[in-house]
Amino acid sequence: MTSKLETKTYRPLIALAMGDPAGISSELTARVVASRRIASATRLVVVGDRRILEQGARGVGLTLDIETRSADEIGPANRPVLIDLGNLDPKEVPIGEATAAGGRFAVENFKTALTLANLGRVDGVCYMPFNKKAMRLAHPGYDDESRFIAEHLRLTDRVREFNVLDTIWNARVTSHIPLKAVAATLTVDSIRAEIALTAECLKRSGISGPRILVAALNPHAGDGGSFGMEEIDIIGPAVAAAAAEGFDVSGPHPADTVFVTALKGRYHAVLTLYHDQGQIAMKLIGFERGVTMLGGLHFPVCTPAHGTAYDIAGQGIANSLASEEAVLLAAKMTAVADKESIAPAR
Amino acid sequence: MTSKLETKTYRPLIALAMGDPAGISSELTARVVASRRIASATRLVVVGDRRILEQGARGVGLTLDIETRSADEIGPANRPVLIDLGNLDPKEVPIGEATAAGGRFAVENFKTALTLANLGRVDGVCYMPFNKKAMRLAHPGYDDESRFIAEHLRLTDRVREFNVLDTIWNARVTSHIPLKAVAATLTVDSIRAEIALTAECLKRSGISGPRILVAALNPHAGDGGSFGMEEIDIIGPAVAAAAAEGFDVSGPHPADTVFVTALKGRYHAVLTLYHDQGQIAMKLIGFERGVTMLGGLHFPVCTPAHGTAYDIAGQGIANSLASEEAVLLAAKMTAVADKESIAPAR
Repeated sequence: MTSKLETKTYRPLIALAMGDPAGISSELTARVVASRRIASATRLVVVGDRRILEQGARGVGLTLDIETRSADEIGPANRPVLIDLGNLDPKEVPIGEATAAGGRFAVENFKTALTLANLGRVDGVCYMPFNKKAMRLAHPGYDDESRFIAEHLRLTDRVREFNVLDTIWNARVTSHIPLKAVAATLTVDSIRAEIALTAECLKRSGISGPRILVAALNPHAGDGGSFGMEEIDIIGPAVAAAAAEGFDVSGPHPADTVFVTALKGRYHAVLTLYHDQGQIAMKLIGFERGVTMLGGLHFPVCTPAHGTAYDIAGQGIANSLASEEAVLLAAKMTAVADKESIAPAR
Repeated sequence: MTSKLETKTYRPLIALAMGDPAGISSELTARVVASRRIASATRLVVVGDRRILEQGARGVGLTLDIETRSADEIGPANRPVLIDLGNLDPKEVPIGEATAAGGRFAVENFKTALTLANLGRVDGVCYMPFNKKAMRLAHPGYDDESRFIAEHLRLTDRVREFNVLDTIWNARVTSHIPLKAVAATLTVDSIRAEIALTAECLKRSGISGPRILVAALNPHAGDGGSFGMEEIDIIGPAVAAAAAEGFDVSGPHPADTVFVTALKGRYHAVLTLYHDQGQIAMKLIGFERGVTMLGGLHFPVCTPAHGTAYDIAGQGIANSLASEEAVLLAAKMTAVADKESIAPAR
């Protein structure tokens, strides 16, 4: 699209925050650093501790060639660089155990990566899996990454979680709240706004004409009001309002078949109304292979959907495919990717 | 197990109620009547209209040899028999259209079959798919089969729906109610009773040591009370009470992975707390091939999980596999099957 070679080959800077050190995070980081398809699409800025990274590299049989830089001098680099916070001695954290030291390490790496992105020194953030128990030991009151980011960056808008698996995205209107509170939390505006954000994120990821399905709340979509009125009073009007604004959206569709419909391939996203409505489907489809993307910021934040895998940590068998997909999705969604051609993601 | 040849070859009498005549019901009925594996395991008593049945048989290229009997003289029969209610002229109902005449036909057949089973003249009931719109035209206020049966047989106990697909059963504590009403409807007793009924139905279907997983209500099973208290206050105590009574049951398990766990094969049933929690999973797994069983009566009532398929009615391409599974499950679950050996279901 552009004649300038330098913009054609621009590779976004992605800060890669090392995650919980007792799990497979360091092995995943080492594999991502060594990945050629990652190198061809991005420039990685690993945030963590060299000793932990080298432990992971040894675990998967890799010798990494990664230069240390300070956060102030990331500079132009053609190879991955490491911001070595020197924040964890491997002896402090036993493999497979949630500890405060491990939680502090993950929290500090993540905060540093977010700050770099917020300052515009990197184009996006990716983080390796966290352990919630360890996060809470380090950061009392820790709930999930969305709230953590909003708190750290002092955002007033909420950060929204999207789950991406192969060709299907799942967005949700509510997330970590009691099921009994879901219905009262839904509004025409919140659903309409989520449709708009979903469409924007899909476009940013490279889908030019995003098609979105919206799930119903009640069994059989309320069956004409017999089993609940939210479809008639809230969800239907929200979908109609979004459609009137030009979004390609339909619903409310009965929740028990909306993913079956989506998988037929003509749609890009399902907007669900509560956590498990989407997660039951995504996990059955194989979301462990997928990517979680946090939208609503001016930079993308992505992570593999699977967890810390304490049970296989240190064995050198961790599969980094989802981590690589997370880095590549973040790269595709950076602001620079909007304006300039970047090297193909794969 | 028994030396008496006559009990070894006892085949339960199953009343097969013809369903909505505008769909594939008559084609399915004809195929089931002609099925050898059905004949080897059951004795069918079709309830409907000979003209409609013959229309279905012609549609699928079968010539049926089925004798007409009256409801008072079903008698011992080695071949399928028909209780011809003479209740619908095929000219009255266009293929693919929900009509009051079609609804009346399905309702009358179903009522007759239920009455026969309630009187002990047959051992179980199977019915071909209904169309809800047609049912409501014929029977104002019609909601679902469970309530219809309870109303018709003047039952005070509720009839419970189970979904059966391959080796996995899904039972539910609540069904056709608004999502916002679910949490307030759950009680320790209702969950405990559903665990007991699920175990009983599984045993009746031939599973000697049923293992049951109970789903949680809130995201991440409430995450220790962070996102809802029902796991701690209601579901956990119900599971503990059932386990103390000797049931092999565990939970509450996070709803987004409970079916992933169940599919690994060591479990027989997932008890879910609301309609879509189970249906999202079951429909993704392929429940259209499955069977719905209505439990809590002194006789089994089964039906294929799929619908009337108006779009392919009359084309002779209807697949009767799920209907056959429904008849076979009903046969396995009859009271006679408890006490005497019956011919193998397949």
